[in-house]
Amino acid sequence: MNIKNYIESIPDFPKKGIMFRDITPILAHPEAMRYVTGQIVEFAKKVDANLIVAPEARGFFFGTPAAIEANIGFAPVRKPGKLPRETMSVTYELEYGEDELQMHVDAIHEGDRVLIVDDLLATGGTVDAIVRLVESRKAKVVGIAFVIELDDLKGREKFKDIPVLALTHYEGE
Amino acid sequence: MNIKNYIESIPDFPKKGIMFRDITPILAHPEAMRYVTGQIVEFAKKVDANLIVAPEARGFFFGTPAAIEANIGFAPVRKPGKLPRETMSVTYELEYGEDELQMHVDAIHEGDRVLIVDDLLATGGTVDAIVRLVESRKAKVVGIAFVIELDDLKGREKFKDIPVLALTHYEGE
Repeated sequence: MNIKNYIESIPDFPKKGIMFRDITPILAHPEAMRYVTGQIVEFAKKVDANLIVAPEARGFFFGTPAAIEANIGFAPVRKPGKLPRETMSVTYELEYGEDELQMHVDAIHEGDRVLIVDDLLATGGTVDAIVRLVESRKAKVVGIAFVIELDDLKGREKFKDIPVLALTHYEGE
Repeated sequence: MNIKNYIESIPDFPKKGIMFRDITPILAHPEAMRYVTGQIVEFAKKVDANLIVAPEARGFFFGTPAAIEANIGFAPVRKPGKLPRETMSVTYELEYGEDELQMHVDAIHEGDRVLIVDDLLATGGTVDAIVRLVESRKAKVVGIAFVIELDDLKGREKFKDIPVLALTHYEGE
């Protein structure tokens, strides 16, 4: 399957000069969702993951069904104020300022083998922050799976020691 | 399966006096996710839905895998500024002020039979707004599925003509 047939490219969103890669047509087509989920599950088995972790909100679209099919747990990464129990936090740099992500402390256990799932790899800042959260719990990130990789932003170089799966690639614009 | 075994009750979150029902333990257990997804899929077939619609972010956890398993499309409902293509909007009342939700215009077509999925039915304000969005496209909401219903808030009374599935029930506190 050429998954690019299910990705729309929207110029100047969310701001001028950005070409936004929109994965909502994948969601609209169960055959495309099955393909994406199946690829992530195969990768999860290859790297022997026992937990999928994904950031809100687009990571949830692909991480949740992949965890069910791989028969492993799922843990969400959320913006502050969303998770009700004891949380751990990490901050990461944005173009201007910084942002914060949280997970429940009890969502990850020592020795867990974690697969991080998100829709798109750009500079890799979000996922790099999640790697730090996971490692703070003495768990290991054994793989990172994206639907889309923006090759010329070189986000992959942040993860030299971790296997990275990307189902399709674009040059940034 | 008693799904309550996978729901944590957190007092005073997000503010004093609220008992928050936390579904993240369901996500952590694939057997619980399979149960929830299976129940939603069975309901989707019973009401002959051809599309699942769910609001961010907790609705995505259950709506996406159910759509894949039911072999039907999925369309997300999001906060303003998240969806890149032409959107339609609806506003709804909160305790103080109001909030806005958006969908892509092309995510729903005339004649669609829509199942709305969310984690929790409280007063039903969010889902009532989504019903209005769906109906504005000459599509029909044929069912609404929740993991949890807070019975004494009587949200169900907003949907007298629509079949409502709730997998478990709590009294509000």
